[in-house]
Amino acid sequence: MALIVQKYGGTSVGNIERIRNVAHRIVKTYDQGHDVVVVLSAMSGVTDNLIALAHQASKMPDKRELDVLMSTGEQTTIALMAMTLQDMGYPAASLLGFQADIITDSMSTKARIMSIGAERIKTMLAEKKIVIIAGFQGIDPEGNITTLGRGGSDTSAVAIAAAVKADSCEIYTDVDGVYTTDPRICDKARKLKTISYDEMLEMASLGAKVLQIRSVGFAKKYNVPIHVRSSFNEEEGTMVVGEDSGMEELVVSGITLDKNEARLTLKKVPDQPGIASKVFVPLAEAGIQVDMIIQNTRSGGQTDLTFTVNKTDAKQAMVIAEKVAKEIEAEEVLVADDIAKVSVIGVGMKNHAGVAATMFSALAAENINIRLISTSEIRISCVIDDRYAELAVRVLHQAFNLDKI
Amino acid sequence: MALIVQKYGGTSVGNIERIRNVAHRIVKTYDQGHDVVVVLSAMSGVTDNLIALAHQASKMPDKRELDVLMSTGEQTTIALMAMTLQDMGYPAASLLGFQADIITDSMSTKARIMSIGAERIKTMLAEKKIVIIAGFQGIDPEGNITTLGRGGSDTSAVAIAAAVKADSCEIYTDVDGVYTTDPRICDKARKLKTISYDEMLEMASLGAKVLQIRSVGFAKKYNVPIHVRSSFNEEEGTMVVGEDSGMEELVVSGITLDKNEARLTLKKVPDQPGIASKVFVPLAEAGIQVDMIIQNTRSGGQTDLTFTVNKTDAKQAMVIAEKVAKEIEAEEVLVADDIAKVSVIGVGMKNHAGVAATMFSALAAENINIRLISTSEIRISCVIDDRYAELAVRVLHQAFNLDKI
Repeated sequence: MALIVQKYGGTSVGNIERIRNVAHRIVKTYDQGHDVVVVLSAMSGVTDNLIALAHQASKMPDKRELDVLMSTGEQTTIALMAMTLQDMGYPAASLLGFQADIITDSMSTKARIMSIGAERIKTMLAEKKIVIIAGFQGIDPEGNITTLGRGGSDTSAVAIAAAVKADSCEIYTDVDGVYTTDPRICDKARKLKTISYDEMLEMASLGAKVLQIRSVGFAKKYNVPIHVRSSFNEEEGTMVVGEDSGMEELVVSGITLDKNEARLTLKKVPDQPGIASKVFVPLAEAGIQVDMIIQNTRSGGQTDLTFTVNKTDAKQAMVIAEKVAKEIEAEEVLVADDIAKVSVIGVGMKNHAGVAATMFSALAAENINIRLISTSEIRISCVIDDRYAELAVRVLHQAFNLDKI
Repeated sequence: MALIVQKYGGTSVGNIERIRNVAHRIVKTYDQGHDVVVVLSAMSGVTDNLIALAHQASKMPDKRELDVLMSTGEQTTIALMAMTLQDMGYPAASLLGFQADIITDSMSTKARIMSIGAERIKTMLAEKKIVIIAGFQGIDPEGNITTLGRGGSDTSAVAIAAAVKADSCEIYTDVDGVYTTDPRICDKARKLKTISYDEMLEMASLGAKVLQIRSVGFAKKYNVPIHVRSSFNEEEGTMVVGEDSGMEELVVSGITLDKNEARLTLKKVPDQPGIASKVFVPLAEAGIQVDMIIQNTRSGGQTDLTFTVNKTDAKQAMVIAEKVAKEIEAEEVLVADDIAKVSVIGVGMKNHAGVAATMFSALAAENINIRLISTSEIRISCVIDDRYAELAVRVLHQAFNLDKI
């Protein structure tokens, strides 16, 4: 007998019929003798409707009140789910964030969970109840309702799993697991049986929208095994676990693609201390997030300074960069938004030499020019021309033998 | 400077535009320098929609979960109102039932308020905030969300007014006060300036749907002056106050009409001890509420036993009565649902003789036959044939000079 936390997203509980389907899935686990804690999102579309309503009331709705309003979404779902389970003859009861003692900081609309008192949940489990908890919401130390930001229910589920020391945390979503790469780009993409927290973090931040990134950080910190799977079929999904959990020995676990960046280059920048801060401080002040930064040495005491930003920020970044270029007497500013960032990710590269060489050779063999390179301990990213993006993904997928796992 | 509690019903906050109108009314009071606490209902229709949704989830929705679901209605309104006020430049913040420390018993869907901790409300008022509190909801000592039953927001408002020792409690509704009788029946009906708690209790229980009856009981207990007025105009409404509050000296304050009762008569019942309990115990066990009970003495050790029940219970009461009649060897059971109960209400009758005589004479002058009579300290009710109901109201309205106040 295990203690299992299950989280279902908005699409899975989008109407009464789907809530009933999810209920059948819950009781299946319960009937196997497990203790079950369920974390639910708002029905799909509801949160957006509430935000629209708030904007009718106020041009800039107060965030504390926005949280009071938005938290009704999950409150509705948990009540309906508990009723549905009871209607099926199962003992179930709902808990709101504050009732489940989910204490957050006071950052309305994007609060962070500080602690979860597991007492009440455990008491209810001891009474053999199925406990249905509202995701996305908590309460701050002053007693104000808070919400955790988009996708926050994933974080709720993982945090609750950590608090009650669950044996596993199942995240049900509309995809059936984590893939080696996007199946729409590479038809040889395979579902991974396991992936490490760190790999998942790199995946998530690079655009694989399976799990909210904060939930993965939480899972890593408290070593909560996450099982990502589909609520629409019975297949096993992907386990997100620690590196020491007997994982398969893959050098590279996945290939990701990000086409949302633009590249800016300041040509012939004087190679002097303080120049970088002259460029990046005003960008930061304008709220523009810079991803990659690369500085190439040139001859004659000059360098080229290149960086990437989100495409939506490119124009504003250009204006700032040109102003700075004039000040520091750089030659010119070039901008390119026909670029793509392709990355290989894998904890295996910590212990395997030659991953970068394999990557570069594979791209070179297809005449794909590498514009920028950046690396982390478990990731290598290359910026290339975007017309080669999909080709690059397929080539790398094959080069690292991901077709065959 | 006074401390004023204002309660607005579902029609008054039925959409964003109406919420804005109410907001203007609130800030008008606030701008006069008063401390303002606002209690809100759910937008009209919302609670019914939520109940319908619950019945899609379960044939017999669990009451605890129904309360979790229904309480989202008021939660939505208070958040929108606080946003609207802030948008207008006023400091406002919402409080849910549990945040306002509204402690109830654990009777889901019809909980009773046990206590209200006024601390948080008072702190917010001290910060010059307009405090917007969700009506209809509270929390029980175990931390479960509860609701107070239909019209419960009136009770919330009065209880909060009592807890914070408000100078007055204004109940805004879609009528502009309490009338001497129903203006649709008698065009001479006048709005009362004041009415006592006891009179209002009799009025409410007899079908004048201005205030929830429990809220009046609460107001009486804690001596909270209630001002019933319309949210759609600026007129003064009716003050509901204690008898010692300098009220006008009316003998009779109002005439009410109730056409929802049916009369049953057991003819020729043996006049023996224990007979009454043989009739009324099975009715009570069937959950049928009996209003009036009258026993006429006959000659020959026999009586006629007559009582009234709600029309919707008449059929079931008939079946029970016929069964009992057979047992106790009563002659027969007669049922009549073409009856009406007309009542005159007034604290003045405690000190004035002749009210009953005036009533009976006025009805007799129009050849209206009185079928049953019952009285309380401040009320006389007569059951008459329903075809005379409206005529009786008009006649009594005139007989007690209510046309002229």
